[in-house]
Amino acid sequence: MQFKFSALADAMKPSEIRELLKYVSVPGLISFGGGMPHPSSFPVNDINTITSDLLLEKGRQLLQYGSTQGYEDLRVQLVKLVKETENISTDKDHFVLTAGSQEALYSVSKIMTTPGEEVLCEAPTYIGTISAFRANGTVMRGIPMDENGILTEKLEEKIKTMKAAGKLPKFIYLIPTFQNPSGISLSLDRRKHVLELASRYQIPIVEDNPYGELRYSGNKLPSLKSLDKEDLVIYMSTFSKILSPGLRVGFTCAPDAVVNKMNLLKQATNLATNTLAEAIAAEYLKRDLMRKNMPAVVKMYREKRDTMIDALETNFGSDANWSHPDGGMFLWLALNDKINTTDMLKRAIEKKVAYVSGSAFYPNNPTFNTMRLNFTYSDNDQIVDGISRLAKVAKEEISLIAP
Amino acid sequence: MQFKFSALADAMKPSEIRELLKYVSVPGLISFGGGMPHPSSFPVNDINTITSDLLLEKGRQLLQYGSTQGYEDLRVQLVKLVKETENISTDKDHFVLTAGSQEALYSVSKIMTTPGEEVLCEAPTYIGTISAFRANGTVMRGIPMDENGILTEKLEEKIKTMKAAGKLPKFIYLIPTFQNPSGISLSLDRRKHVLELASRYQIPIVEDNPYGELRYSGNKLPSLKSLDKEDLVIYMSTFSKILSPGLRVGFTCAPDAVVNKMNLLKQATNLATNTLAEAIAAEYLKRDLMRKNMPAVVKMYREKRDTMIDALETNFGSDANWSHPDGGMFLWLALNDKINTTDMLKRAIEKKVAYVSGSAFYPNNPTFNTMRLNFTYSDNDQIVDGISRLAKVAKEEISLIAP
Repeated sequence: MQFKFSALADAMKPSEIRELLKYVSVPGLISFGGGMPHPSSFPVNDINTITSDLLLEKGRQLLQYGSTQGYEDLRVQLVKLVKETENISTDKDHFVLTAGSQEALYSVSKIMTTPGEEVLCEAPTYIGTISAFRANGTVMRGIPMDENGILTEKLEEKIKTMKAAGKLPKFIYLIPTFQNPSGISLSLDRRKHVLELASRYQIPIVEDNPYGELRYSGNKLPSLKSLDKEDLVIYMSTFSKILSPGLRVGFTCAPDAVVNKMNLLKQATNLATNTLAEAIAAEYLKRDLMRKNMPAVVKMYREKRDTMIDALETNFGSDANWSHPDGGMFLWLALNDKINTTDMLKRAIEKKVAYVSGSAFYPNNPTFNTMRLNFTYSDNDQIVDGISRLAKVAKEEISLIAP
Repeated sequence: MQFKFSALADAMKPSEIRELLKYVSVPGLISFGGGMPHPSSFPVNDINTITSDLLLEKGRQLLQYGSTQGYEDLRVQLVKLVKETENISTDKDHFVLTAGSQEALYSVSKIMTTPGEEVLCEAPTYIGTISAFRANGTVMRGIPMDENGILTEKLEEKIKTMKAAGKLPKFIYLIPTFQNPSGISLSLDRRKHVLELASRYQIPIVEDNPYGELRYSGNKLPSLKSLDKEDLVIYMSTFSKILSPGLRVGFTCAPDAVVNKMNLLKQATNLATNTLAEAIAAEYLKRDLMRKNMPAVVKMYREKRDTMIDALETNFGSDANWSHPDGGMFLWLALNDKINTTDMLKRAIEKKVAYVSGSAFYPNNPTFNTMRLNFTYSDNDQIVDGISRLAKVAKEEISLIAP
């Protein structure tokens, strides 16, 4: 039987990260490739206690079909959470719960864009967003960044060009804080500029904020949603980095019209998120366990970030540049611009170190000498060894390149 | 801010069932509307024990990001399950795990059809499939049924017409056993005829089998997948009816090419199913608890079905017709053909009884005097009272209609 797939399915391709997963089981491989929390960050005992309490108290309710929009207790807790952590004022009816923020990313592109329509984003941007948007035929146009985030002057130019062509972007997708993959945060001035552009041209902003609670240094910056007076911002986050990614619970806080469409799509896509997982997340917040557990996680990740930066300085010195993130899970490394990190990956894996090459994070016009390095998953000694291996591979790579 | 949505999002509408949910909390309402298992069918204690054991044994693994295709232990258990229950021979690499079968339905229409392309199905058919397919712009053409299921002669005619027009259906979607909403099962002869048509015209079949384990009378019929020698059949089922719908674990057993595309879409849509829920389902099978628990559930549902049929006979006599399902969760009721059950629903809810009107289950050319009745969710005395209320409403409805 020869199956004939849809146009969008024909266009879907395995991502580099996915292909990388094949190598994760190579003995002794140190992987900076994935975006995984450290396993010790998961509050296994808390979750065990909570789950048992919940099943005893209302097991029959939690095992039944749940609400499409999401378990109400969790939406009530989220109102408090986003107020306390991001100064966002909202109510429970403006949340939609999803299977991680990946579902929210997929949903927003599906409801907002007809295939071929364009959105603007940072370049580089999150690889999972590229695959979600591509699955819906959404065309992403990347705007360059510097150490203060997306260049809003360039963003404005692009919007003007598109407006002149009669085709405004359907939305602007941003990860303003500890961006994936760059680790960069958008400066306050530029946050205001982005909102001003969104307001002037009436373009919605999708603010993706999975890493907000993972700050290791510097001062908190206000979320775009908290600065938004006109309901321009669709805000999304997840429990993947503050509780557990395996539970697959994400949330979107959005204006009514968007909530309604996301609900309708969710009913068609999977009916509801896992109710037990939603209830676990609600109880985790209700018992104030996030506040209790996160400081140790932040401390651990701060050390890992510092360990990686130290190792980069020791091993690369002036032969490379890297970002200095105040939080999140990633560093962005730029090598000698003769190096193609995609070509180099095979040799890196032979030397038992892995990363994701930078080109995978560009919707268009990639750079080829860059890579994303995750510092949360590995142990400190692995970080030291892995960066040392990486530096050796990069040095050999230079010698392999014909002068 | 005026949001502009995609063409497909503009076409999405709230389903009647969704609207109905508003009334579920009306005090004293007896609802035959939803498709929910009885709460007493959930093995709460088993799930509690399993979850605790799993978290203690490998909590950190289960709370981490999981496999897109699905937790391997569960796929291994599913190989045994489909062999024992449906005589399907396959291996673990031919399963994709999903958030209930709803995600599988959505996925298969997204990967197989470009908006506007057509598929064939039973008429009436599952309302959730209609919403999943519609969200992807898949056009469904309903083929009539009788008490032995879809009329395969009509199906063949339609295929021939489509072939003559140069546009074969992308697949045939069927719920061959205890169909939702009709309760009807496809006869063995017609099962063979469907497969013969699929083979002759090289059209894939999507076989949706959520209710196979809920048999109350009659002899087991072979699944289409078990009769399929040419990899024509994409088979899907779920743990929603044999364990818990809140856990959102469904599974699809399909040929390689389909598994690959479903995986790629799943990576873009939600990365993975909740790993803990997958592990609970795996352990439930491994500990042989399904076999232990299901007989009591089947016995309970058999009584409910019989109670509903008795009540229909007592209250409607020859004023209506209804299906006599050997299993599943639903009866299909046809009233006097002057009655419009959609119009009648408001008055039924006033009398504190609810159903889903039949017209909601047709992708095109609906019937208006029909309804779907769920018999698994209500208690026996509610079934007796509810059918009595329904008969009164129907009698009054006749008197309301001008002669």
